[in-house]
Amino acid sequence: MLQTAEILAVGTEVVQGEIINSNAALIARELTGLGLSVTHHAAVGDQIEQIAAAMGEAAARCDVLIVTGGLGPTCDDLTRESAARCAGVPLQRHPECEEQIRSYYQKKLHAGPMPEENLNQALLPQGSQVLVNDWGTAPGFRLTVGGCELFALPGVPRECEVMLRQRVLPWLKAQMGHAVTVERTLRIFGLGESAVDTLLRERMLALKNPTLAPYAKTGEVELRMTATAPTEAEAVALLDPLEAEVRGILGSAVYGTDTASLEETVVGLLRERGLTLGTAESCTGGLIAKRVTDIPGASLVLKGGIVAYTNAVKQQVLGVPGPLLRQEGAVSAPVAERMALGAQAVLQCDLAVAVTGLAGPETDEFGHTGGTVFLSLTDGQQVWTREAHLGTDRARVRTMTAHTALDMARRYLTGLDVSGQDIPV
Amino acid sequence: MLQTAEILAVGTEVVQGEIINSNAALIARELTGLGLSVTHHAAVGDQIEQIAAAMGEAAARCDVLIVTGGLGPTCDDLTRESAARCAGVPLQRHPECEEQIRSYYQKKLHAGPMPEENLNQALLPQGSQVLVNDWGTAPGFRLTVGGCELFALPGVPRECEVMLRQRVLPWLKAQMGHAVTVERTLRIFGLGESAVDTLLRERMLALKNPTLAPYAKTGEVELRMTATAPTEAEAVALLDPLEAEVRGILGSAVYGTDTASLEETVVGLLRERGLTLGTAESCTGGLIAKRVTDIPGASLVLKGGIVAYTNAVKQQVLGVPGPLLRQEGAVSAPVAERMALGAQAVLQCDLAVAVTGLAGPETDEFGHTGGTVFLSLTDGQQVWTREAHLGTDRARVRTMTAHTALDMARRYLTGLDVSGQDIPV
Repeated sequence: MLQTAEILAVGTEVVQGEIINSNAALIARELTGLGLSVTHHAAVGDQIEQIAAAMGEAAARCDVLIVTGGLGPTCDDLTRESAARCAGVPLQRHPECEEQIRSYYQKKLHAGPMPEENLNQALLPQGSQVLVNDWGTAPGFRLTVGGCELFALPGVPRECEVMLRQRVLPWLKAQMGHAVTVERTLRIFGLGESAVDTLLRERMLALKNPTLAPYAKTGEVELRMTATAPTEAEAVALLDPLEAEVRGILGSAVYGTDTASLEETVVGLLRERGLTLGTAESCTGGLIAKRVTDIPGASLVLKGGIVAYTNAVKQQVLGVPGPLLRQEGAVSAPVAERMALGAQAVLQCDLAVAVTGLAGPETDEFGHTGGTVFLSLTDGQQVWTREAHLGTDRARVRTMTAHTALDMARRYLTGLDVSGQDIPV
Repeated sequence: MLQTAEILAVGTEVVQGEIINSNAALIARELTGLGLSVTHHAAVGDQIEQIAAAMGEAAARCDVLIVTGGLGPTCDDLTRESAARCAGVPLQRHPECEEQIRSYYQKKLHAGPMPEENLNQALLPQGSQVLVNDWGTAPGFRLTVGGCELFALPGVPRECEVMLRQRVLPWLKAQMGHAVTVERTLRIFGLGESAVDTLLRERMLALKNPTLAPYAKTGEVELRMTATAPTEAEAVALLDPLEAEVRGILGSAVYGTDTASLEETVVGLLRERGLTLGTAESCTGGLIAKRVTDIPGASLVLKGGIVAYTNAVKQQVLGVPGPLLRQEGAVSAPVAERMALGAQAVLQCDLAVAVTGLAGPETDEFGHTGGTVFLSLTDGQQVWTREAHLGTDRARVRTMTAHTALDMARRYLTGLDVSGQDIPV
């Protein structure tokens, strides 16, 4: 019976603090969600004695050990060798693993002949179960070390996460085969974490199963609901009324359930409604269009975008009148409106969003302080404009501006007040 | 003589993955910067047996142990008690510490009468040196446990960081007062990690001080050189010839030393040369412009960009001829060239980069397979075009395309072969 779990990160870049070990938190959350008790995290550098010692200690204490990193092809990558040493077995070439590495290299990377060194990655401890990696060249493996099931996963966060979800969690679920945990995440824009906390605090404290927990992201809040029951249907039946209740309290600030992002929501809504989008961006410099085109299928709904970083481009490409720019300043409501209308005309799209603002801490000659942003949305009939004050951290101003622009599109497409005035508090 | 250090986080919220342990990376970086060798990180939950066991193991292995978290006033806060148990001493009330807690509470928090529970925080292991906390209520402490100096700091990242900088690092510096570690990072584009490893493997294995270690990022490699010496000048004198040697081997693939990114390098070069840039993006959907405008000061060099996601925008905004699009397809060298020339004309910039490609796994009707990308750079006189095959992972294709476009600009601005043919291997 699997009860306890530990996590070990391998890599000098982790112990020296060059990178933050975010894999550990993700893995811990997922294992905790399965009902395992995660008792210990560790990280060690790329020295075989230290890796083998940490692995041996952990394997002696717990039932499931997840090791991340140290699976690459170089002489610094020592997870395979350390695991073999702990289990007291030799390394063994896995021909089907070599085949997979060659094939991934050829099909996915197109990077010329593969260095033979990459085949080091197919040398796995005898008795390993290969965890095929369809997202990179380094295969993972599962190995029984004494009474512990050791899983070795790549350290690159993207590969680590997908390997965990596809290759580790299903195996653990099958082994544990009892309670089913179902998780649902509501995504919220327009209310801060403490506002959400105030609105829901009493409910959150009273709930045991399902549970409700808020997590803040830049300018957004995620609200995670988790239910455990003998079957999936029973777990879902616990979540449905809670979701309805929470949506009733938070209103239009909830923009989706189990959706990845505002941009995914907006692309989905545009596709449903058969409408197209265009962008005109000053301070965000392409971030809005970039986020929309992160979503597969964006080509069906995004016509294009204009990054109008200078007044010349605002005038010549978007047709914003020169006198207006001189009188009102580039950071102003009338200029945002003209940018939206200009983008709609030039890009021939149904909806256009435009943003212009000051991303840095400086104040412009019209007295607008840093972080002031004007956003406009037009459908060709009408123009809606919002003013926002987003602080003076450049990256945050840009992220929040893009969030707000996408949220205006989301609100238009779902028939809500585009200004966001209908959010509680 | 202090040589090795370890870091231990205490808190169930850490081991269960509710929060990412970013303190560990910060502390590790600072300690590494002092010349300490950080060998191990760990995290355990709020159970006294587990905390005391992890503390005891770490204290037996290392010279300096930084413990974060578990210093609050509740029954879950067990760092003080665990440290006392490890050192074999009782807890002792510190009256001056009680005073400090009362005074912080009254002056900083204005939160009504203080719960008496807060005074638990003044119960410290006998023989502790108090680390006064001017930024919160929980004092830290330093305690000698066998041959190890244990420092206990609050877990709240803001308090942890300031206590580290104000209460721990000065003490360690005074104790160590000798070796200085200088680190330098070379950034590489155009060579993969295993190619870099093959070219430098013998050197890396032979080197002890300075050391040389490669780290892979998406499509890039970082090469970190670290030297330790009695003075900074001597450490730098160890690094200079190594950097020259490595640059000689890797050639033009090295794009910078201690620079943050290709976009920072390109913005710096454009500013030095007084030139402006514009972009025309199809498959990257604004990512290149977004990355350039991530850099403060981009407004001096980026005129703007056109996200030409559809053929209509390629024709109407960039002036790519319709017959060319129909004959060659949107993903083709002639279209990339016309997009670059069109962007240069519309945006009135000195240099324009254009990209067009297939980001997803689909094949187009002209037989171009997923991941095929054409990139063009023009300075108005001449047009350079590259074809790349970047696999079928959408995010990777987009990132690599943006890298390659920025690298073409970097190569133009430094007088290198824009095609990248001069990279070894």
